[in-house]
Amino acid sequence: MNTWLLQKEGFDKKDAASDGNRFLCANGYMGLRGVPEEAGSALFPAITLAGVYDQFEDKWREPVNAPNCLFIHASFNGQSLSVEDGSPQAHSTALDYRHGVYSRKTDFGAACIVSRRFVSMASPHLLADEYQVSFRLDGEMTLETGISTDIWDINGPHLFDYQLTAGEILAVSCVTGQKKINLAAAQCVQADFEAEESLRQDETGVFRVFRRRVRKGETLNLRVFSAVYTSLDEPAPADAAKSCCREAKAAGFSACLQSHTDAWEKIWTLSEITLEGNEEAALFLRASQYHLNCVAPRHAKNMSIPARGLSGQTYKGAIFWDSEMFFFPMFAYTQPKIAESLLRYRVETLDGARKKAAEYGYRGAFYAWESQEGGEEGCTNFNVVDVFTHRPVRTYFRDKQIHISADIAYALRSWYEITGDRTLLQAGGAKVILECARFYLSRANGHFDSDRVDFADVIGPDEYHERVTNSFFTNEMIRHCLDSALLLKDIFADQPAWFASLLKELNYEQDWALLPALRERISPPRERNGVIEQFDGYFGLEDCSLDTVRGRLRDPREYWGGDHGVAGTTQIIKQADVIALMALLPERFTDRQAAANWVYYEPRTEHGSSLSACMYALTACRIGRLDEAWDLFMKTAQIDVLGGGKQWAGEIYIGGTHPASNGGAWMIAALGFAGLKMRAGKLSVDPHLPRQITRLSFPVTACGERYRIDVTHEGASISRQ
Amino acid sequence: MNTWLLQKEGFDKKDAASDGNRFLCANGYMGLRGVPEEAGSALFPAITLAGVYDQFEDKWREPVNAPNCLFIHASFNGQSLSVEDGSPQAHSTALDYRHGVYSRKTDFGAACIVSRRFVSMASPHLLADEYQVSFRLDGEMTLETGISTDIWDINGPHLFDYQLTAGEILAVSCVTGQKKINLAAAQCVQADFEAEESLRQDETGVFRVFRRRVRKGETLNLRVFSAVYTSLDEPAPADAAKSCCREAKAAGFSACLQSHTDAWEKIWTLSEITLEGNEEAALFLRASQYHLNCVAPRHAKNMSIPARGLSGQTYKGAIFWDSEMFFFPMFAYTQPKIAESLLRYRVETLDGARKKAAEYGYRGAFYAWESQEGGEEGCTNFNVVDVFTHRPVRTYFRDKQIHISADIAYALRSWYEITGDRTLLQAGGAKVILECARFYLSRANGHFDSDRVDFADVIGPDEYHERVTNSFFTNEMIRHCLDSALLLKDIFADQPAWFASLLKELNYEQDWALLPALRERISPPRERNGVIEQFDGYFGLEDCSLDTVRGRLRDPREYWGGDHGVAGTTQIIKQADVIALMALLPERFTDRQAAANWVYYEPRTEHGSSLSACMYALTACRIGRLDEAWDLFMKTAQIDVLGGGKQWAGEIYIGGTHPASNGGAWMIAALGFAGLKMRAGKLSVDPHLPRQITRLSFPVTACGERYRIDVTHEGASISRQ
Repeated sequence: MNTWLLQKEGFDKKDAASDGNRFLCANGYMGLRGVPEEAGSALFPAITLAGVYDQFEDKWREPVNAPNCLFIHASFNGQSLSVEDGSPQAHSTALDYRHGVYSRKTDFGAACIVSRRFVSMASPHLLADEYQVSFRLDGEMTLETGISTDIWDINGPHLFDYQLTAGEILAVSCVTGQKKINLAAAQCVQADFEAEESLRQDETGVFRVFRRRVRKGETLNLRVFSAVYTSLDEPAPADAAKSCCREAKAAGFSACLQSHTDAWEKIWTLSEITLEGNEEAALFLRASQYHLNCVAPRHAKNMSIPARGLSGQTYKGAIFWDSEMFFFPMFAYTQPKIAESLLRYRVETLDGARKKAAEYGYRGAFYAWESQEGGEEGCTNFNVVDVFTHRPVRTYFRDKQIHISADIAYALRSWYEITGDRTLLQAGGAKVILECARFYLSRANGHFDSDRVDFADVIGPDEYHERVTNSFFTNEMIRHCLDSALLLKDIFADQPAWFASLLKELNYEQDWALLPALRERISPPRERNGVIEQFDGYFGLEDCSLDTVRGRLRDPREYWGGDHGVAGTTQIIKQADVIALMALLPERFTDRQAAANWVYYEPRTEHGSSLSACMYALTACRIGRLDEAWDLFMKTAQIDVLGGGKQWAGEIYIGGTHPASNGGAWMIAALGFAGLKMRAGKLSVDPHLPRQITRLSFPVTACGERYRIDVTHEGASISRQ
Repeated sequence: MNTWLLQKEGFDKKDAASDGNRFLCANGYMGLRGVPEEAGSALFPAITLAGVYDQFEDKWREPVNAPNCLFIHASFNGQSLSVEDGSPQAHSTALDYRHGVYSRKTDFGAACIVSRRFVSMASPHLLADEYQVSFRLDGEMTLETGISTDIWDINGPHLFDYQLTAGEILAVSCVTGQKKINLAAAQCVQADFEAEESLRQDETGVFRVFRRRVRKGETLNLRVFSAVYTSLDEPAPADAAKSCCREAKAAGFSACLQSHTDAWEKIWTLSEITLEGNEEAALFLRASQYHLNCVAPRHAKNMSIPARGLSGQTYKGAIFWDSEMFFFPMFAYTQPKIAESLLRYRVETLDGARKKAAEYGYRGAFYAWESQEGGEEGCTNFNVVDVFTHRPVRTYFRDKQIHISADIAYALRSWYEITGDRTLLQAGGAKVILECARFYLSRANGHFDSDRVDFADVIGPDEYHERVTNSFFTNEMIRHCLDSALLLKDIFADQPAWFASLLKELNYEQDWALLPALRERISPPRERNGVIEQFDGYFGLEDCSLDTVRGRLRDPREYWGGDHGVAGTTQIIKQADVIALMALLPERFTDRQAAANWVYYEPRTEHGSSLSACMYALTACRIGRLDEAWDLFMKTAQIDVLGGGKQWAGEIYIGGTHPASNGGAWMIAALGFAGLKMRAGKLSVDPHLPRQITRLSFPVTACGERYRIDVTHEGASISRQ
């Protein structure tokens, strides 16, 4: 079994959306969905750009898809050589996770296509495709390659004022509707055959058309080089795109591929977990690492990763808490520059978070639930469409999921703990933590007749229960945020003047004095038989099984949450909540507490989010439920291999890759199975290796040093590299 | 036009539910729905008992309907003389509002029925019917009269262990399922004809059957006397019921009717508003006064009136704030003993309110939203059924409509102002006010970082907007409650020891000191161009027309409120809210404020509750919008004449009479058009007579004195009687 290779035989149109995710190629700058070159918009082709957003009319704001500049379509003797309408006899697709190379082979009987392509990890703007077509009969061949403007958009269109240029290099320039960002795509080719060549341009794009007569047994070889730039990258994106593909062509396909694979090798050197004992698991884990690595913003210093990576426009291409909770750990321990970029994105969007807090009448920083460029909130008040009335439903993710600010503060503190680096805190990170703490000072709900403080009307990670009071997760993350704010004084004990001036700059002196009091007065959680109540009143909700709740659905696409949803009035939860907190702050709980809560909450959890299984697995490792940890690991790691996960929330399509699960797979392996931990400058492991695995071995970077962790059932070692 | 008479020609089964309400007879002890004597359960016959509740299985708790002890059914030559299946040629129904007498006349061609009946206002347990049947052909007649156990229940059955007794007096004894209350109905007859007589008893009840041959032109006359008792009235209810109808029969139908009409004459002497200038309006106002007077608990000292009167089991037969806001004023100004009974009900159910507060973790008294006997909360967490999924929807009336306690305190203070009587305050009323204020002390939401106090997560009168913060109505009613608590010290300034001992008994010393601070710190409302924001964020909601919102309905029975409802996310409100407050506490606002708010909110109000139009009308009078006040008056007063009003909330039937509108009609006429006011012991009028009315004249009782108010366009007078 090649544990680096994802393969699929056959073509089925109904799998196109899912396969586009599973076979994704990406390099952090852009993502190219895994559909064949000839695909029209019905198969959801897309080149999704990171950090470029647009809003059309009053629809949801979403990332922009570039024109399809790797479009190639052949026909032979009047037969379209297309998976969609060419009735292929055989079709196979593969993705090489090690080097990020997509390949396909399609046999149309009279002709056969073999191609491979990549989105360059060495050159962020470059895509290249090597396309071969061979013939079993004599006949007339037509081969079109070019830049298609037939773009699949969920809430588009986003691109206007198209300017097409045909010549040795084809080019398309256009501008986004809202912010007038210039976007250009260019393409040039290297053909190893002679043919009648013409150019075609119309409202569907600009194309180069090869026509010639071919003989039985003949194979034609075409190499396509494309590039995408926007005015956010370069003042003259069309020129830059043309230069990029011209230079690539000059270097040649093999050289470009070599640079690309070299770059991937470096990534694996830094991050690869070797898992022995179960090949399927090894494949899943590699797939997970591939998918998270390929969407990392390596080309930038202050970008984060959308919740659906670069697999399309779902989730509005927005940055969620997934970044801090699930993407951050692998990068922090393997490629700190990327982890730093994720956090710098938050530092640089502090003003957006301040604006949002002020919008709701609060002080400090209330980070966006769905953050787009500049920290603007992409989440609307109506995030679900009712399947019965087709009307938008008021949801409370935007305004009530206040734990987001504490999650960011948590990651900033983790950054300091894992890297030992204070510069990020000094360069704005400390400010973020203080402003988040200040938000909670102003959001806290006191009691008029007692000292107790509640956080009322919130949503915890379990979004099915809206507008609850004293969400345990939320309260404890807030307490941790207040702790982190107070800790800053110790961290900068050697620079008291700097810290004092920071407080002064933030006009924080009064608030500083309030932090310890708030910390102490937050209502303690209620417990029953050692089980912590998820929020006030949770234990009073109907206690029924997941099957009972599922049985009440009248439509499989119904949204489960809120007052109208089947779960909202029961104890069934969407995802890890109390257990998520125990996984994030394990030292705060005894093993016995962890076990009691795991046993209570796990059967009541739908795992309706890709953020759930990982948290349960981490806690399962700790309490020795290794078979369950294994099952949860497999569930987490397989998601972008097998293409599972929820596809719908009400009438909204939410499919795509699952970077949170991808990061979760690394977390379970490294933090759970190996028990990796960095505390007070000390790296340690505490293995809980399931019986299905014989060995785990992986590199770690911590406090600037490189280590290798090796775990078997016989023992574990940490060695300096 | 006879402005005391409601008449209807014809029979249509689809009107049966509505007609049962419009032609209701009642005496406070019980209500007899206005359906013909022979009606089976498909026409919703019911004798609904006040204050007797039962729960079957896990269905809603609701009032108990007694066995139908006025059942009479004739047939002639094999034809059933029944409106349902007898194909009547003509049918007319009438209700005499002055004396509470229902009559019907039905022509079946070969035979004709004429009857009249009443629920005695002189003898609370007695019902009587005079039933005549005449014949146009010779033939065989059968006449059955008895006690039918074929009871219409919404959430039943409620009665079990039936024991039937046949003899000179027919009787049915049974017990309720939940509390095992014994309930008995008895019937005896006086026939002025001879016939073959037999008795029948089976699972449908116990009946007396008359059979005889009749001649063309002959008329048979039957008088039926029935009675209902429960073990809450008498230890041996069956004996009591038998005695009651035996004595009535001995006295005779005419004597019984005379006592009944004498009792009604006394009621009208105390309460009748004479309206001149518009006969239709006069009829509507009389209908309103009839319907409210007939459900008043004259037989008891500590009962209140359900929101749907005694017209059936809808609204669970529960006591709502309607009692204090809409029933209380007419009784307080005309028949203070009844007003006192409404308030004593609250005084005696204080422990239920304390229990509810404690259930939610608060102190003091949180009164039930739907109060049944003992103050138990009849409102569930699921008060609406979704029309699309048929699933119950979580609603927040029970837990978030906290203004109910302040509404009760408001009525207690009004009682003192109108009657000048302190004894009710001393006999528990002061305790209620203090405990309500204490509830707000514990319910208030402070801010950790400021002195401001919110009342968050509440529902105001406009129930379409759930879980709002700083509902202006709620906040100001709470402030008024705190004021009233503080005022108690002045009211009892001459009895300082008693008051001190009251505070001590309630362990109130600390809380007393907090009252002024809370009063001062409640967040002030936001205003825009003089319009007060209904709650925090209301102005930010979609501002669209009522028609737009109505146009979004996918099912006419959809519930409009909450996050899923068409109104919940817009500025469209169910009923008067800011304007209700301005009507209740008019002195707190200038005419200019009242006008600005009226003009803003009125077009945004669905008037989807019978509690709405009255409040708008009162404020319309004040600001001189008399044509609008007139329209709202007519809308309010006509409701139980024409049978309007909402019949459905989701899938729940909510039809019945509308005592709140009935009381509202009195309020508009007396408090609005005449401008009646009692402040600081002084009765005054400030007329705003619409041009459609030439004269209003009515009796008032205030501070123990009787007055007559006379208002014309020429002037107004208050004369001592």
